[in-house]
This record gives sequence, structure tokens and C-alpha cells, in this order.
Amino acid sequence: MNERQIIDHIATLVNQADERLLKGIGDDCAVVAKDGRLVWLLTVDTIIEGVHFDPTFHPPEKLGRKVVSVNVSDIGAMGGRPLFALLSVGLPRTFDPSWFRAFARGLADGCREYGCLLIGGDTVASPQGFNCSLTVIGEAAIDQVVYRNGARPNDAIWVSGPLGFAAAGLELLRRRLDVASPALAPLLAKHLDPPARVELGRQLGESGLVHAMMDLSDGLATDLAHLCKQSGVGARIAAWDLPISPALIEAARLTGANPEQWAVGGGEDYELLFTAAADAHDHLLALGRRCGLPFAPIGTIVEGAGVVLLRRGADETLEECEIAYQGYDHFYGNIG
Amino acid sequence: MNERQIIDHIATLVNQADERLLKGIGDDCAVVAKDGRLVWLLTVDTIIEGVHFDPTFHPPEKLGRKVVSVNVSDIGAMGGRPLFALLSVGLPRTFDPSWFRAFARGLADGCREYGCLLIGGDTVASPQGFNCSLTVIGEAAIDQVVYRNGARPNDAIWVSGPLGFAAAGLELLRRRLDVASPALAPLLAKHLDPPARVELGRQLGESGLVHAMMDLSDGLATDLAHLCKQSGVGARIAAWDLPISPALIEAARLTGANPEQWAVGGGEDYELLFTAAADAHDHLLALGRRCGLPFAPIGTIVEGAGVVLLRRGADETLEECEIAYQGYDHFYGNIG
Repeated sequence: MNERQIIDHIATLVNQADERLLKGIGDDCAVVAKDGRLVWLLTVDTIIEGVHFDPTFHPPEKLGRKVVSVNVSDIGAMGGRPLFALLSVGLPRTFDPSWFRAFARGLADGCREYGCLLIGGDTVASPQGFNCSLTVIGEAAIDQVVYRNGARPNDAIWVSGPLGFAAAGLELLRRRLDVASPALAPLLAKHLDPPARVELGRQLGESGLVHAMMDLSDGLATDLAHLCKQSGVGARIAAWDLPISPALIEAARLTGANPEQWAVGGGEDYELLFTAAADAHDHLLALGRRCGLPFAPIGTIVEGAGVVLLRRGADETLEECEIAYQGYDHFYGNIG
Repeated sequence: MNERQIIDHIATLVNQADERLLKGIGDDCAVVAKDGRLVWLLTVDTIIEGVHFDPTFHPPEKLGRKVVSVNVSDIGAMGGRPLFALLSVGLPRTFDPSWFRAFARGLADGCREYGCLLIGGDTVASPQGFNCSLTVIGEAAIDQVVYRNGARPNDAIWVSGPLGFAAAGLELLRRRLDVASPALAPLLAKHLDPPARVELGRQLGESGLVHAMMDLSDGLATDLAHLCKQSGVGARIAAWDLPISPALIEAARLTGANPEQWAVGGGEDYELLFTAAADAHDHLLALGRRCGLPFAPIGTIVEGAGVVLLRRGADETLEECEIAYQGYDHFYGNIG
């Protein structure tokens, strides 16, 4: 059983029939009707020492902020804004109080930044290492919620910023490679303390331009496959349109990695992935500029299924490569 | 830092000002206004292998049910009914799929029993052992919510059922002592698969008779101290009124334990602890009978602070013993 099979198995056991439940398992958040006009968005994420962070190079204050970011990112990815959070922390018996206080400061700081109020929680002892679950409750206008399942053939596929930064940053940090280089700092920051595109997601929801949206947590190849499966469509991505920055190429040179593999398979970028009709192109570029984000169209939704990456071969012929789900799975590591 | 200090520290970092937030950290649930008539109740609890359960004697299906019970118990303890749940599970890389499927069956079964819909979740790899957080969202009429902070001097203190069963059951299971004895089965069941007093809590909230309420998760001495601190009062408990059953005495004989210490300090009974005016006595006994639960008044709320246990000495003199917070703390084990 991998992560998807576990989630699928749980979903089959659960009777989803409730008139207030607009969306259960299978999107960034569950969506519950609050009244005729508003919905509540609910999401939970867990981070575990040694799986999601390495305490030898992850400052606790940044980790506290990241716990908030990765959660509110799911709220933003549906067009909502965060309201409340509940925290559950597991602390080893030998935990360092000053480490924990720094973590809590970062968490409080992140909550303030995204307008999210910590309203409850639970602390338990952990037999090994630190772990932490955050549940976030957000809100959206019922007609501005953007689901994963609305992508339509001929939609353009967009990402809100550069790809592969978090995976590259993590690799540099693991290997203690050039971690003081200013050119590489954005990569490290993306792993340690990624910003969540909450305000952007809200504006995209409000714009009415976007047909499907989610955040990039497991990597483009996996997340786009989820979006396509939910929408009953396929996708074609152009390798030459992927936002691969010079910093990513430099990090790949230093570590002997392939920047395209990072961009396609690397997890935890927390950029938004969304689709919109082709004629929304100029509106979306303008919206991105207003938010200070370098939006990039990277491909097209097509009839059918699967996610195909197009590459130009040596003789300018097109190569097609199926990449669906070749991203990060917590049970198998990064296979992108 | 112990568990209370950690929670207190987090609470100080968080700005609780929001007009919709009726109650933040410090009660069984956070309470958020839904509209002028209803509130939402939100709670989270985590269980960790080796801390909260021992897989060598805890059947996974019962564990799945317990994860639900301990959470909906918090909803019931404020007079509400559960609606929705979000699950986060951490699974070791070597987990047994058949174990997990049995756990998930129990979880789904518990959700059905308490009318709670599982609407979302998250799975992660755990470096050691199984862990699981459940967030539950419930609902109550705004004027039927019962907080911890409403206890008044001269209130009678009630518990909804026998005390110490879960602690005794755990000890028997740990030592593999007489675990097949029918007389001791209720003790084992109380650790493995405790019922949550959700319907009772709702009826108590509806009755308008109850001034303060919470569920017994950390043991009477600790939980009553929380309730008194929140209410700005003290409590006097009569040892001779504690509901100590013959089964508890038999388990104490087998293990060399003190049944009174189990009743006072043992955690995880998930009975309701509540206070009400003395003249509500007959109404409450009748309500308990209708629910099939042997309610017991065990003491009185007094001016001041602290929790005093009264015992009759050898010569019929009264001994007074301060017991506040002498219950279960996850960081120090059972010190009751």
C-alpha cells in the first residue's frame, strides 16, 4: 500500500453522504457548506522529524512557520482564506525547551502572517523525534471555490512560480553544499520556509478565470496527475516551458542532478497549479504581475488521461514521455 | 516543561482576539460562532504507538474505534454532537496492511456510531511506530454549550460512571493477568475501546442543569483541578463517595495496586465530570437512569482553590489530602 492506496482505502470505508458536505476526501481541503453563501474549508497536514525535516539544518523558527504555510497553502489552493488552526504536537521526552519555544514563535508568526488564529491543540509524548499536525479551517464564498476537478480540454496549464526549488534546496542542505551562496539562497528558503500563495489563490478564485487548482506539494508529475484524474482529462507539458531558473541549473551542476527532474518530480514547492481557458492568458499574466509572481503557462489539458512531457530531441523531433505520478511519495521517496 | 506548561506557552504566543472565537485554548474544544444560534466545536487528539497504546495487546479494530471515541468525547463534554472528522495517520515503512485495514474498519465503525463523517486526511511515513491525529468538528446550540469555567461554590460534583477502570484495565493487559475473566472484562474494555458519553453530554447541555463540564481523560485529580482553576473555585471530594466498583478492587488485589489511587489518578476513563446546583440532584439521577449510567455525586465545589480528598481516618477523624494535578501527565506517566 502506498500513500494513494491508503487514502483510497480510507475513502471507501467512509459514507460520504451529508447534504452539507460539498467535497470530501480527494481535494486540497474538505468543503462544508456554512450557509447559502459561504463554505468552510478544512485541511490537516503532519510533519515528522526525519521524514519531513532534518533538525540538524532546519532552524526551529522556520519549521514553525513552515507548518503553517504548508497547511494554509491548501486553503489558498481552493480560493479561500484561513481562519482558525488546531495544533497537535508530539515531543520526545528529552526535548529541548528552547528549541520548542523557537518553534512555537515561528508557528505564531506564521499564523499572524496568514491571518489564522490558533484556537486549540493537544500535546503528547513522542517515543522518537518531534512531530506535529496542524488542522486549518478556512472560509470562501461558495461560488469562488476552485476544485481540482474542473479542468477542461484546451485549458492552459499554469504554475505560479519556479519549480524544483524546494527539492534542490533540500539536496544542497543535506550535502552542506554552498549553503551561504546568495544565488542559491532562494532554493534553501523554499525548503526551510516556503511562502504559501494564499492571497494569490483567493484572487484567482475571485477572478472566476480558473477552472481547476491545487497546490504543488508532491511535485508537478504527481499533482498534475491528481488534477487530471479528478477532472477526467489528460495533460501535455512542454519541457521547454517549465520555469527552470539559473539558480536551479547551478544547484544541479553542484550536485550532479538533473534540473528537469527536480522541476517535474520535486515536491514541496507550494506554488499553485491551475488551469484556465486560453483566452484568459493576458488577464492571468497581469494578475501574476500584480502579485509579483512570475506565472508561467507550461502546457495544455487534453482529452483522455495521463500526463505527457514533451521534449525536443537532438534532431528537433518531439519526444513524448509519460510522467504521471512520478513525483514524491512519502513511502518511496523521490522517484522523479 | 510539562504538558500544561507547553500548552500554556503556546497559548501566550497566540492572539486570541476574534469576535467569532467564543473559546480558545483551555477547554475540551475550541468554540466558534457559526451564526447567532449555533456554534462549532473543534478538537484534536493524537495517539502514538508505545505512548497511548501497545500493539501487542491492542486489537487494531478497537484502536480505530478508540481514536474516534476519545475525540468525540470532547465534543460531548461541551454539550455538542460530532459532525465531521479529519484524520492524519503516520505509518512506519514496514507497516502491515492487514493491521491498517482493521484499524480503518474500526475507525469507520466509530465514526458511524457517533454520527461523525470522515471528510479528509493526510498520510505520512513515520520513522517509528504508528501514530494518528483526529480532528473532530461538532455543533451545539449556542445556549447549550457547557464550559469548564462555570462551576460555583456549593455545586455538587458528579461523575457519569465508575472511575479507574481504564488504568486498571491497562495494568491487567500489561501484566497479562486474568485477562479472560468476565468480571474484569469491563476494565479491559475501558482501556481498549471506551465508550464516549456524547449522547449524555448533549442531554446534560440541553437540560440547562449543568454549570461546568469536561471529560475525564487525565484522571479525576488533574481534570477536576483544571475545571476548578478555570472556574476560580476549589473542590472537596469524599473518598467514600468515589464510585469504586468490586471489579476495580479485584484488579487492585491481583496487581497489588491501590483502587483509590486508580480512581483518583487513573486517566482515560472518558466519563463526564460535571457540576450542578444541589437542588438538581433528583433530576440528574433520573437523567442518568434514562441513559443507563450510574451517576454519582462525589463532592462539593467550594470557595478558594485546589482539590482536597477527604478520607475517614482510623478513629473516624477526617483526613484532608491535596490531590490537584496528581493524575496522568504524558510526560511523567501516571503519578496518581
